[in-house]
Amino acid sequence: MKHFQAGDYLHSVPIIVSEQSIIEFAQEYDPQAFHLNAIDAARTMFKGLIASGWHTSAVSMRLFVDTMNMPGGIIGLGVDELRFPTPVRPGDELRLGINIVEARRSKSRAGASIIRVRNVTTNQRGEVVQSLYASAMLPGKEASE
Amino acid sequence: MKHFQAGDYLHSVPIIVSEQSIIEFAQEYDPQAFHLNAIDAARTMFKGLIASGWHTSAVSMRLFVDTMNMPGGIIGLGVDELRFPTPVRPGDELRLGINIVEARRSKSRAGASIIRVRNVTTNQRGEVVQSLYASAMLPGKEASE
Repeated sequence: MKHFQAGDYLHSVPIIVSEQSIIEFAQEYDPQAFHLNAIDAARTMFKGLIASGWHTSAVSMRLFVDTMNMPGGIIGLGVDELRFPTPVRPGDELRLGINIVEARRSKSRAGASIIRVRNVTTNQRGEVVQSLYASAMLPGKEASE
Repeated sequence: MKHFQAGDYLHSVPIIVSEQSIIEFAQEYDPQAFHLNAIDAARTMFKGLIASGWHTSAVSMRLFVDTMNMPGGIIGLGVDELRFPTPVRPGDELRLGINIVEARRSKSRAGASIIRVRNVTTNQRGEVVQSLYASAMLPGKEASE
C-alpha cells in the first residue's frame, strides 16, 4: 500500500468537460437555466452555459480517485470550505492538484490511514474553479477482504 | 419574488435513489468498488452497495432547487461542513430539510438576496445521510433579463 505524508503533492491528468455532460448533469441534479441550455443561459448573469458546482465537484472527485489510485479505495469523511471561484464552461480542460496536508494511521481501524487534503481544480487558463479541504480514510487492502 | 427570513423552514418531497442511478453516477464520477456493483461492494467494509457522497450531494441539490422553486435561480456561493454520517443505499427514500439561517439583501446586486442555509438530508428511517451549511445568492427575476 502507498503511504502518504504531509507535504506530498500529486496532480491529475487533464479532463475536458463537454457541453453535453454539463447539460445531462443539470437535467438530473440541478435544473436551472444557466446550467440547462446555452440560449437561456446567455440571458442570465453568466452570459452563457456554466456547469453546476456539484458537477464540478463530481468531475474533481473522478480526478481525485484516478490520481490517488488506491486499491482499497478512498472513503470521504467530510468536506470543508468548498468554493467555486470561477464557473466551469463547455470545453474547459480541468486539472486537479492534491496537497496532502496531514497523514496519520487510523486509531480505530488496523492498516488504515487518515489523510487531510487541500484539493484545487483549475481550468486551462490556470483559474481556480474549485477548492476544498477534505478528510478521507484510506482503508488499505483490508477494505476488500 | 419570494422573500425568506431567518428561521424559515422548508421541506422537500421524497425521492428514491435507485441502484441503477448509484452505479451510473459512480461509473462516471467515483469508480470505486463500494459504489460500482453489489457483489464487489458486499466484500468491503460497507457490506453492500452505497452511493458516492457526491451523488448524495447531487440528489440533495435537486431537492433543494425543486423545493426553493426560485424563478431567477439559486447560485451557490460556497459550502461548509459537508458531512455524510450514514451512507445512502439502493432504494433509500431521501428528504431534504432546509433551514434558512440568515437572509439579507445583496449589497452588490440590486434586487438580489443572500441566504445562508443549513440543509439536512434524511433517509426513510430518519437517519441523516448528509448535512451542510451553504451560502447562496437569489438573484431575483433580474437574473434572466
